[in-house]
Amino acid sequence: MSAPSPRFDILGIGNAIVDVVAAVEEGFITHHDLHKGAMSLIEADDADRLYAAMPPGLESSGGSVANSCAVAAQLGARVAYIGKVAADQLGDVFRHDIQAAGVHFPTSALVGGAPTARCLIAVTPDGQRTMNTFLGACTQLGVDAIDADLVANAAVTYLEGYLFDPPHAQQAFYRAAEIAHHAGRKVALSLSDAFCVHRHRAAFRDLVAGHVDILFANETEITALYETNSWAEAAAHAAADVNIAVLTRGPDGSTVLRGYERFDVLSLATDVVDTTGAGDAYAAGFLAAHTAGRSLFEAGALGSAAAVLAIAQYGARPAREKLRRLFTGV
Amino acid sequence: MSAPSPRFDILGIGNAIVDVVAAVEEGFITHHDLHKGAMSLIEADDADRLYAAMPPGLESSGGSVANSCAVAAQLGARVAYIGKVAADQLGDVFRHDIQAAGVHFPTSALVGGAPTARCLIAVTPDGQRTMNTFLGACTQLGVDAIDADLVANAAVTYLEGYLFDPPHAQQAFYRAAEIAHHAGRKVALSLSDAFCVHRHRAAFRDLVAGHVDILFANETEITALYETNSWAEAAAHAAADVNIAVLTRGPDGSTVLRGYERFDVLSLATDVVDTTGAGDAYAAGFLAAHTAGRSLFEAGALGSAAAVLAIAQYGARPAREKLRRLFTGV
Repeated sequence: MSAPSPRFDILGIGNAIVDVVAAVEEGFITHHDLHKGAMSLIEADDADRLYAAMPPGLESSGGSVANSCAVAAQLGARVAYIGKVAADQLGDVFRHDIQAAGVHFPTSALVGGAPTARCLIAVTPDGQRTMNTFLGACTQLGVDAIDADLVANAAVTYLEGYLFDPPHAQQAFYRAAEIAHHAGRKVALSLSDAFCVHRHRAAFRDLVAGHVDILFANETEITALYETNSWAEAAAHAAADVNIAVLTRGPDGSTVLRGYERFDVLSLATDVVDTTGAGDAYAAGFLAAHTAGRSLFEAGALGSAAAVLAIAQYGARPAREKLRRLFTGV
Repeated sequence: MSAPSPRFDILGIGNAIVDVVAAVEEGFITHHDLHKGAMSLIEADDADRLYAAMPPGLESSGGSVANSCAVAAQLGARVAYIGKVAADQLGDVFRHDIQAAGVHFPTSALVGGAPTARCLIAVTPDGQRTMNTFLGACTQLGVDAIDADLVANAAVTYLEGYLFDPPHAQQAFYRAAEIAHHAGRKVALSLSDAFCVHRHRAAFRDLVAGHVDILFANETEITALYETNSWAEAAAHAAADVNIAVLTRGPDGSTVLRGYERFDVLSLATDVVDTTGAGDAYAAGFLAAHTAGRSLFEAGALGSAAAVLAIAQYGARPAREKLRRLFTGV
């Protein structure tokens, strides 16, 4: 017996974050001892200190899976999102932007606790982004935020690896996966960041092997997960662990694996302005096409095209009119 | 007896505002009955309603004279700024950005009152920006915020016409002009907006005729001030009222008048992305060059070049490295 038709194509669950993006010179990264290209967690005091040292910035809504949700909705998918902001100005900005993108966002705001999470993003002249995140209200996302009816009514529940960082989110994670599978739905996961994989490798391995249908990972993440230097070896592991492995390779394109099937998608050339959100946009394009019944190759192609739009601009969420043009092209 | 050497080239006094910029279609302007190309004041409720209707946005520090101060500082001028933010997240963003641009910003934040001002900016495909401002904490800028020592130590005190809108700022305005002239310094004013001129014409005429040395205005503003359809007639009035009249004319360039002297500066061609901050950047370039002892023609040319950088991008404050390249070119 198959599950009834879902109300949503994608339900994202992730850290609800506002980005502060500023252009810096290479020297800024070394001077402040930052992990170039990675996401590091910082406490409130360090966030204040780093922000004080940063040049003037632009603020916009961020969060890995939240970015994917906003992009997927603007590509025409029916999308919902669960994530925790505070009842403050940046929380209002986050809520406005994801709702304005067309995403259903029912999670209540945290009152009287930590402020809305922010990610300080230093963009170097090579377009690489170095991220430092103060998790704030995201640490309060727990099982109670998981609306069982919502999960049961989404074709794919999409989780971000970053959710392993805040203490209560892992339970929310497993609960959502359990509800989704019980309802005959799929679970997708992004590994998010190689350092995040290092921090939580055992938990990731357990989750991937036992609870994930669609896995997204770039080269450093997938090799970190399987503790190998060989991408091919890691890819084979991933293909054995999950139903669909979607492996992005930066300028070398991406590879989608399903059992013994393999689809290679070329990367599209573009000027690199800011790589923030490239992986998020790829996942958005892939999931929007996949849940619309397109082939895995088409899904990879749309992911790749959406990623290019994200790379060619500042910020993680390309404008609606650019995305619309894309989708009709596939 | 001439005044001692000033510590600052420019002291700006203005409404301290955070911008929320979003790209919209033409239909958005008519549907919401907005004054295209102008700045309108709105109350908190209307701000909430309009924000809810706007697409996802980018947040960045704004405020007309604050933009000029940030740009002038990045061009190498010594700049201070007086303006009122609240003790909230958007106030912190405003303070960070203006300080990171190199501007001295001593004004204390408002605690327990209205939130930091925000300006909802709808940018249409033609690059025109339509602004709706909720003044918030700016309404609490008064005489007590005017540091007499700071004013006496700035070569030029630069005021924005928008300051006529909040109730207490006019007194601050006149007080600053009085201190500046008593100390042998100059007072500059931007008319800001034709609707603002209509709202406060008598007060503007009194201020311009009796207290302003350098006047900045575009075509609609200067003709509104002198209630004439003829730009030439308005320009002649302005030249009689103030020492230096700096009259911008959009794509037709700008004209600087001092007594019987007249300097015409060509506008530089560029793709129009977003005109937000074009006039602010012009004033910044002009004042940075003028206070550095450059000729009026050179000042106009630097103003024009800075304006082009603002027009060719989203947002009002071009990046430091672009501005630096400019100044060495004059």
